[in-house]
Amino acid sequence: MTTTATTPRERMLLAKDAARTIGLLTDERKRDALLAIADAIEAAAAEIVAANSGDLERGRATGLSTALQDRLRLDEPRVAALAAAVRDIAALPDPVGRVLDERTLANGVELTKVSVPFGVVGSIYEARPNVTVDIASLALRSGNAVVLRGGSAAEFTNAALIRAMRGALADEGIDPEAIQTVDDFGRDGAKALMQARGIVDVLVPRGSAQLIETVVTESSVPVIETGAGVVHIVLDASAPLDWARDIVVNAKVQRPSVCNSVETVLVHRDAASGLVPPIVAALQERGVTVHGDAVVAGLAAEVVPATDEDWQTEYLSLDVAMHVVDDLDDALAHIRRYSTHHTESIITTDDANAQRFLAEVDSAVVMVNASTRFTDGGEFGFGAEVGISTQKLHARGPMGLAELTSSKWLARGSGQVRA
Amino acid sequence: MTTTATTPRERMLLAKDAARTIGLLTDERKRDALLAIADAIEAAAAEIVAANSGDLERGRATGLSTALQDRLRLDEPRVAALAAAVRDIAALPDPVGRVLDERTLANGVELTKVSVPFGVVGSIYEARPNVTVDIASLALRSGNAVVLRGGSAAEFTNAALIRAMRGALADEGIDPEAIQTVDDFGRDGAKALMQARGIVDVLVPRGSAQLIETVVTESSVPVIETGAGVVHIVLDASAPLDWARDIVVNAKVQRPSVCNSVETVLVHRDAASGLVPPIVAALQERGVTVHGDAVVAGLAAEVVPATDEDWQTEYLSLDVAMHVVDDLDDALAHIRRYSTHHTESIITTDDANAQRFLAEVDSAVVMVNASTRFTDGGEFGFGAEVGISTQKLHARGPMGLAELTSSKWLARGSGQVRA
Repeated sequence: MTTTATTPRERMLLAKDAARTIGLLTDERKRDALLAIADAIEAAAAEIVAANSGDLERGRATGLSTALQDRLRLDEPRVAALAAAVRDIAALPDPVGRVLDERTLANGVELTKVSVPFGVVGSIYEARPNVTVDIASLALRSGNAVVLRGGSAAEFTNAALIRAMRGALADEGIDPEAIQTVDDFGRDGAKALMQARGIVDVLVPRGSAQLIETVVTESSVPVIETGAGVVHIVLDASAPLDWARDIVVNAKVQRPSVCNSVETVLVHRDAASGLVPPIVAALQERGVTVHGDAVVAGLAAEVVPATDEDWQTEYLSLDVAMHVVDDLDDALAHIRRYSTHHTESIITTDDANAQRFLAEVDSAVVMVNASTRFTDGGEFGFGAEVGISTQKLHARGPMGLAELTSSKWLARGSGQVRA
Repeated sequence: MTTTATTPRERMLLAKDAARTIGLLTDERKRDALLAIADAIEAAAAEIVAANSGDLERGRATGLSTALQDRLRLDEPRVAALAAAVRDIAALPDPVGRVLDERTLANGVELTKVSVPFGVVGSIYEARPNVTVDIASLALRSGNAVVLRGGSAAEFTNAALIRAMRGALADEGIDPEAIQTVDDFGRDGAKALMQARGIVDVLVPRGSAQLIETVVTESSVPVIETGAGVVHIVLDASAPLDWARDIVVNAKVQRPSVCNSVETVLVHRDAASGLVPPIVAALQERGVTVHGDAVVAGLAAEVVPATDEDWQTEYLSLDVAMHVVDDLDDALAHIRRYSTHHTESIITTDDANAQRFLAEVDSAVVMVNASTRFTDGGEFGFGAEVGISTQKLHARGPMGLAELTSSKWLARGSGQVRA
């Protein structure tokens, strides 16, 4: 199922046109469309894996890092996992048509605020074929058309996935133009997408801090920023050792490559001698390199001296920064300066300090006595995750299907005019 | 109460710093601060009017239009009205701290999503001193600091208003740096505000389509677009003449200079001969110039021939475009092409057509049998209006205090880690 449109703008206009009918589909039709997409992806597995081999081959030839190659790779089990994820999204409740507010004016005009699809959702991302399927499915489930720009490294793979998804829509009698790619236009495609105000309603960048920065800076389409996580855990003077150690180790080690893993541990001076040695040892046992200040280095062995650079770094690896602070004020000041406002947690048994931390830390998710790894749409019970918003407009923190909808006011009168 | 900061960035950083304490103020303290501001504005009335005379004098010398001069003018009664508006905002309920969502995870972690201030709200507007007081008051009531850029034409007036407001905050023991202006930096101030990502959390432009376009295009700070209104009323085949005439006249004549006034009336062909003559006559009686297509011109006298230009025009004056359409599909297609997605209304007694109109028109407010003039925060019962959003992200339609808040997730655990 290929398109006849020959420019990025033409493709986006086709998506906009398709959005009209997609937005009016019933819950059942949208669910069926996603199940058909899941089947089509599985049926095209061989073709998708072959296309992916082509991307990988070109990646090796052009010196793509092995980490990126791994993220790019699709084998048959991974394709099956993609299809399974689509079926999970199909099973979620329809986020469209919820009544968000109701009021009747004194003159009898009835107002109802209902959730509606955005219309056209754009996404710019890099070398992650799973995002192609994920964002397209989430967009369709919420009644939106989608325009994708997945980067040249995954171009063949994305094309194969999109072909399968568009074919499934056509077979279901749904306008296949609801799924568009601008990958084949290279950077011009990304540029057109960022300038498509009035055609594309919202743009969700996913990928490196650099990519997100570019999109936020260059886009005239409203952007939902899914940002980096320089995530902090504060060990208060009253932090119990077992909670502190278990949470820090979990937040660092369980999956270091993701944005909700901890990057900096701030330890209250009064608790440093009791907490630093066993926690550093527990981290090092699991292969973590601890970058610490002079106090930390004085309390534990094999600590790499930390510089200001470390406090700003999202390692995304088995590295963690550790800094001893004078008190809670000092910890809060450090967080204000270095946090990316994603997630911060305090380990404490002091209620007043817990309350202060919850009130004063300006991040999407603020925790007391829990691992930062819980900042996740799946963990929050959303069933799916569009991303984790680090901006304050529209959505903040883990985003589910509801965050892919807008609203509109319906007013029903019987001839009323304004006095 | 003047500031020592000498660059736009320094001023914005002072606002960001002040936002921390403003965001933690109790409901009562915020209310008292606004009442003090209202008193201070009244007390400074003579000074404000004198500053305004200076602006008006310069405006006349530089050829400012009489319409803009009128919008700029402040006399003592208008200053009193500004103070009264601040008191109205003081009386509104606190939008901060509302529980928006609650859930307890299977592992016992308790999640609460609460409304929080944005932090720093920026606004760029033109020659409207009332916006200076309005936006500052709305921002403070919702726990935000504010950075204002009100344009050179109102510079003296805005400076006097801001001096009074900052003085009131200082007298109340509240950080006066919560109210900042970058007016004295000219275009550099506006530029700095649009590029202040990470310092300013949201930017609300208010004014001409040109100004809004510039802000949306150039800003890397998230923007809430309060756009123009090319507002349509559709007169269906079943439209009762009295409703149709009363609503069209009200929507055009009651206050033609505002964005929710009607600009284009679309008349179903089957009803044209019955509706066009009396409605054109009723409009003309009230001084309205009707710009109509050939069918309209054939049914009524003194109709100015309409061109494609008319369908795109937000007249904001006693002018209205009128076009006869073949059917509801034709009306919907016209609206898709020319609407600015602000407000559209259909006059009909046909339930199916009403339902279709509500479902298919993609505007912030979609009405049946009511005047488009109801699209207004005051009319909707919000008590105040930040503006009318024509974008789909974060806020759509009339915005009240709630739309000047973001949210954050609070997570309370007892040592939980992710499995």
